[in-house]
Amino acid sequence: MRLPRYYRYLGELLEEGVERISSGELSARMKVTASQIRQDLNNFGGFGQQGYGYNVKYLYEEIGRILGVDRKHHLIIIGSGNLGQAIANYANFERRGFIVSGMFDVNPALFGRSVRGIEIRSMDGLEDFIREHDVQIAALTMPKTYAPQVADRLVAAGIKAIWNFAHTDLTVPEDVVVENVHLSESLMRLSYRFCSMQEEREK
Amino acid sequence: MRLPRYYRYLGELLEEGVERISSGELSARMKVTASQIRQDLNNFGGFGQQGYGYNVKYLYEEIGRILGVDRKHHLIIIGSGNLGQAIANYANFERRGFIVSGMFDVNPALFGRSVRGIEIRSMDGLEDFIREHDVQIAALTMPKTYAPQVADRLVAAGIKAIWNFAHTDLTVPEDVVVENVHLSESLMRLSYRFCSMQEEREK
Repeated sequence: MRLPRYYRYLGELLEEGVERISSGELSARMKVTASQIRQDLNNFGGFGQQGYGYNVKYLYEEIGRILGVDRKHHLIIIGSGNLGQAIANYANFERRGFIVSGMFDVNPALFGRSVRGIEIRSMDGLEDFIREHDVQIAALTMPKTYAPQVADRLVAAGIKAIWNFAHTDLTVPEDVVVENVHLSESLMRLSYRFCSMQEEREK
Repeated sequence: MRLPRYYRYLGELLEEGVERISSGELSARMKVTASQIRQDLNNFGGFGQQGYGYNVKYLYEEIGRILGVDRKHHLIIIGSGNLGQAIANYANFERRGFIVSGMFDVNPALFGRSVRGIEIRSMDGLEDFIREHDVQIAALTMPKTYAPQVADRLVAAGIKAIWNFAHTDLTVPEDVVVENVHLSESLMRLSYRFCSMQEEREK
């Protein structure tokens, strides 16, 4: 699933005013082999013309369409601590069609406060809010203890996409997609690679 | 690199007081095939005795050792906005030996403030701080524009492990490990899978 990465690089090229790019140039920039690039991009309908390179804007828009970032998606954030607020504050998501419609928490002290104009609400109104605002994606940034029961409520309310930051795996029906961001595991992967490298050096 | 996931599950089993577990039980819990589990764990020195299952505590400690979480690692956070603060506030990292020693920012309004007792400092003292506190890992949670130059400073100061949350790829020497957490790309993967699933349903 390298498409989001292509999308990021193509976006940067567009910002730099680059109109066409060869697989060789893209390869040097992304540190992926040119043949891998040709293979990846040919899967998606032959964007490149032999000898002319890729049309950056066309490729960017086509990949954007495949990734679904040409549409608007309404997103809610459940858990309005630092991590939830960091996501709400990241305005770049909105440029890609991900609109943060609401934030939720269980802590009454947060109710009515706003982050970038987005109100923090009580969990009581969760189901109504999802229905009224046509919410499709929910980001879970609360502690893992509550995550499974909240996921069940979301699924019952019709949510089909969960962005899960809680440190636990969720059990959901087959037609619901879950994308996990397990930060502890990411930090342990870093630590593992760091320790292996250190052992190499000591040899 | 499934070890961090095993580590998390084994930690949960330990908390539940489970002393031994068979590859079949672990398989059902982790949704990985039993043969995959045997293969993964046999790579690390035959923790399981045929017919007796795995000793949970032993396996947890051995995997912890391989992941380097039996040691202390000093970590700094560069970028003290919501995301940096979310990481600083996540006390679980400390239980795994990742000690947040310092936080840095370029915004003078933040200098001297503390998050969970960790002071936010000016970037001016970065190199001295790294040396004096034996810092090994740096988490980058600042905007992508500054990330490459900060990474260069870190590498020059001897940092060998970068946990990169900035939405850009970093160029570092071969002996420096970088673990990327690109949240935009994660959200696009979710959106892609969500849109594909929706198209399936409409067929």
